[in-house]
Amino acid sequence: MDYQRVIENIHKDFQSKKGCGKVADYIPALAETDPMQYGISVATLEGGQYEVGDACKKFSIQSISKVFTFAMVMGHIGDEIWESVGREPSGNPFNSLVQLEYEHGIPRNPFINAGALVVTDRLMSLYDRPKEALLDFIRSLCGNADIYIDQRVAKSEREHADRNMALAYFMKSFGNIKNDVDTLIDVYCSQCAISMNCNDLSKSFLFLANHGVNPLNGERLLTISQAKRLGAVMLTCGFYDESGDFAFRAGLPGKSGVGGGIVAYIPGNLSIAVWSPGLNPHGNSLLGVETLERFTTDISNSIF
Amino acid sequence: MDYQRVIENIHKDFQSKKGCGKVADYIPALAETDPMQYGISVATLEGGQYEVGDACKKFSIQSISKVFTFAMVMGHIGDEIWESVGREPSGNPFNSLVQLEYEHGIPRNPFINAGALVVTDRLMSLYDRPKEALLDFIRSLCGNADIYIDQRVAKSEREHADRNMALAYFMKSFGNIKNDVDTLIDVYCSQCAISMNCNDLSKSFLFLANHGVNPLNGERLLTISQAKRLGAVMLTCGFYDESGDFAFRAGLPGKSGVGGGIVAYIPGNLSIAVWSPGLNPHGNSLLGVETLERFTTDISNSIF
Amino acid sequence: MDYQRVIENIHKDFQSKKGCGKVADYIPALAETDPMQYGISVATLEGGQYEVGDACKKFSIQSISKVFTFAMVMGHIGDEIWESVGREPSGNPFNSLVQLEYEHGIPRNPFINAGALVVTDRLMSLYDRPKEALLDFIRSLCGNADIYIDQRVAKSEREHADRNMALAYFMKSFGNIKNDVDTLIDVYCSQCAISMNCNDLSKSFLFLANHGVNPLNGERLLTISQAKRLGAVMLTCGFYDESGDFAFRAGLPGKSGVGGGIVAYIPGNLSIAVWSPGLNPHGNSLLGVETLERFTTDISNSIF
Amino acid sequence: MDYQRVIENIHKDFQSKKGCGKVADYIPALAETDPMQYGISVATLEGGQYEVGDACKKFSIQSISKVFTFAMVMGHIGDEIWESVGREPSGNPFNSLVQLEYEHGIPRNPFINAGALVVTDRLMSLYDRPKEALLDFIRSLCGNADIYIDQRVAKSEREHADRNMALAYFMKSFGNIKNDVDTLIDVYCSQCAISMNCNDLSKSFLFLANHGVNPLNGERLLTISQAKRLGAVMLTCGFYDESGDFAFRAGLPGKSGVGGGIVAYIPGNLSIAVWSPGLNPHGNSLLGVETLERFTTDISNSIF
Repeated sequence: MDYQRVIENIHKDFQSKKGCGKVADYIPALAETDPMQYGISVATLEGGQYEVGDACKKFSIQSISKVFTFAMVMGHIGDEIWESVGREPSGNPFNSLVQLEYEHGIPRNPFINAGALVVTDRLMSLYDRPKEALLDFIRSLCGNADIYIDQRVAKSEREHADRNMALAYFMKSFGNIKNDVDTLIDVYCSQCAISMNCNDLSKSFLFLANHGVNPLNGERLLTISQAKRLGAVMLTCGFYDESGDFAFRAGLPGKSGVGGGIVAYIPGNLSIAVWSPGLNPHGNSLLGVETLERFTTDISNSIF
Repeated sequence: MDYQRVIENIHKDFQSKKGCGKVADYIPALAETDPMQYGISVATLEGGQYEVGDACKKFSIQSISKVFTFAMVMGHIGDEIWESVGREPSGNPFNSLVQLEYEHGIPRNPFINAGALVVTDRLMSLYDRPKEALLDFIRSLCGNADIYIDQRVAKSEREHADRNMALAYFMKSFGNIKNDVDTLIDVYCSQCAISMNCNDLSKSFLFLANHGVNPLNGERLLTISQAKRLGAVMLTCGFYDESGDFAFRAGLPGKSGVGGGIVAYIPGNLSIAVWSPGLNPHGNSLLGVETLERFTTDISNSIF
Repeated sequence: MDYQRVIENIHKDFQSKKGCGKVADYIPALAETDPMQYGISVATLEGGQYEVGDACKKFSIQSISKVFTFAMVMGHIGDEIWESVGREPSGNPFNSLVQLEYEHGIPRNPFINAGALVVTDRLMSLYDRPKEALLDFIRSLCGNADIYIDQRVAKSEREHADRNMALAYFMKSFGNIKNDVDTLIDVYCSQCAISMNCNDLSKSFLFLANHGVNPLNGERLLTISQAKRLGAVMLTCGFYDESGDFAFRAGLPGKSGVGGGIVAYIPGNLSIAVWSPGLNPHGNSLLGVETLERFTTDISNSIF
Repeated sequence: MDYQRVIENIHKDFQSKKGCGKVADYIPALAETDPMQYGISVATLEGGQYEVGDACKKFSIQSISKVFTFAMVMGHIGDEIWESVGREPSGNPFNSLVQLEYEHGIPRNPFINAGALVVTDRLMSLYDRPKEALLDFIRSLCGNADIYIDQRVAKSEREHADRNMALAYFMKSFGNIKNDVDTLIDVYCSQCAISMNCNDLSKSFLFLANHGVNPLNGERLLTISQAKRLGAVMLTCGFYDESGDFAFRAGLPGKSGVGGGIVAYIPGNLSIAVWSPGLNPHGNSLLGVETLERFTTDISNSIF
């Protein structure tokens, strides 16, 4: 398959859609992002790397970081994590808090904010320096030492973290947060503020396409079964209240962030990262979702 | 792959689990089912058929019928159906009604009861004799003319249909049910009461594994894209509030019914039906879910 | 207190507000009501009757009928009714169905539709001819034989009763409706369609101001304790999601209907009926609420 | 009316119920309260004071403090407060958070925790030293300088304030909390930890029975209209999810606290405080509610 040509065609055909959607504006540091940027990167298990557009420009990975922290925690404590967080879709955004109350502080899945806070809390219990451990983990996945936390974004996140503070204290009242809430929010805001580009991201998801083994160094990070399970959770929960729709359209497990990035993968084959800052009403990159739907159509390959 | 040996091993290893779970007892006609029955059937696109245990005994397919009615309606009216029913998981059972109210009578997906009622309502608008049309459709899929509605079960369903009557009238108040409610409930109860065995069911899902084409006669029932989409909806919504967990454990698109049947498939490869009447607390066959998790583990093949 | 002058002053001062609000339009028979009508009637335990404006014109009492059916049922079966219906405010309209599900088919109070359906269902179990019994009850309260069901309105109600059908079937699925749903809806639509004028209504609430005794004939209909309790439920639940606000503004127990009528009373003293068809966003007569707030201010008397 | 004899009779008749219910145990400092204590105090506008049992022992007033802070804020900023907090019952406890989300951070009423936090936040904006101002206000109401914050209880409250921290941060995310959350929680925990006895409390509510004027010094604290409105809000919202039931049984405006205290009043007449630490499942003093129901029955006087 000539992936280079496939993504170039898509990139060309979708030029007119650049700038569509609404750049995330809940923090000033994100609001000023140029909406016209658009990059695609594909990495294959055979070692190929294909890119087009703004695939080398770094952006804020935001919620995509939840996949990394979850993989780290799952790799360490295994199925024990499921005592603290569920694996069912959350229904709709409106329900998040009532479900947390109804289900006694156990978030529905690790990819809604409440669940990701629990995962980061466990990461803090596993590592003395959780931020550094996370950066090292990502660097080893993408083979790039130049992965860092954008301190300006992290600071802006912390200044607008009232909702996440509320979620953390609420779960702490149920005993499902173990560490200090202020420190937890600091780590969480830092992980969201990690800067990466499409090439970094496509490479860093190859270990999932490779059933749990980092293809760069052969290290097994997750068992085959854990990798399968993480994929299933991404497919059913990776796109907020649009998860069903993304599975429906693209037919791939993946994860999006409000920075405009989306990473997805085809098991045993490849991973693909797209970046376009304009979001649709569900908070997922508008052009990113369309790109991935078109990609699986063009290569006639999805998991279904 | 020696599927016959795989399913025989599973069937043997799980003998001690027969009778586990709780047989559906919301209607008398189902409550008297012998809980010790256990059958498995695999059908491959290459034409193979493998069975073990009670794979030839007929049982009530219940909600599995929702896949057939949905495929029929989707094949006729295409994407128009998505104006009347969503494709997102429903969160939890407790939410069903409030979501229906909050989302103005549009059910979350075609596999919760509310959504299936909308689909059956559309089927009634398409066919003068919807029950007969549905039976003909299923017969052509499994190549067996001996598929019928168990009138005793259908009658029992109608006598305990207050909740479905409520759902139908509620959606009618939003204009999302077009036909007479009493007739709708009659058709709906009849489709749930269709009797089939595991061999019938595994064969009848091959058109999905075959990307929309009935392998028995080469007829295209769904476009490739529609088949992909139906698979995605089954994966995210096919098991009520346990959909995420089933994807997590078995990693396959599928559909269960409270009669104790589950049918799932691997695109491009095979379909598999399991029957064991004892249900877990989410209303899915307890041994059926375990069988499918073990099956994908043993053949080292899932969609992830 | 010169009640005649008080209500004449209010009526004069509020002339410019006639026509404000929105006439109920969910059924055609109500939608055509002239919005400019405005009547007030006061009846005192001392036997006085004061009126101004359109106090003699009949209108559809709608939900005000729920007070009459509830008083009849409470008078017959006493505290037993509280096993089937609660006495807590319902929070907000959006919650009605989820609360019904969460609380297993027991409506929050007798003045939301679900609760009133349960009450009418019990009335049907008590009387062979419930509609006639209800009319006789009201006639004896207001001393006017000319109280009847407006059949045109009743028919229109029945044709738009899908939501109430849904509520009734939903509660029946929990065993909290005993009679045939179609018949229940017919009786319920009939009670809503009763025609009365302000003078009829103010007189018919005097038995509540009189602590349970019909002042016209000395018959005790409710015990003192039952009358106190019915008043408390009216104060906390009589105005849908605006009950707290009405208590806050007018400080009186009362009940409104979407026909634009409101009846309220001061225990030991008087009752007052207002009619103005324009409704506020909560479904209560806009000018009616303002009239009652002004009335308690002008006479310096409320229950607080 | 011989109030002394009325309360002595009740106190004697209810001896066998002392110790019923469950003492609040969410903080250690309350859990160790002796459950056998039971006091009643009545204060009349004519200057009478009647007491029986443990009416002189101080206890933690907890949520009763919400009436004092609300009266102070209402007295200062008047109707402006209703832009930040509603006056409708909250439905049920389960809804508190979802309603806050659904209604954009505006709590339903000032007597649920979320609403009381908003009120205390406004108090902080009005006074440099809000705790001292509150104590002075209460001292002037009951004519007793010996009113203080129990620092041991306040400290215990702060150590178990995760849920209130969550509520405060959640509302801050909507802009409805203006001050620093840590300081707010400190003030809030302090107000809950104020110690008073039944005699203090009955006297301190006389200004409400007196339509807003402190009878001790003639100072008008609330307008007549404000006093009426505060009474209405107490009646509809003063007893959590049991407000409707308390109105139904006792027929009086009042407020309870988890310390086991309840204060209620009859406008134009008297106020009454009861203390018994055992709570019913709704968090209101079990014997306190029964005492007040019996009291209004015995004196044949309620607001209905």
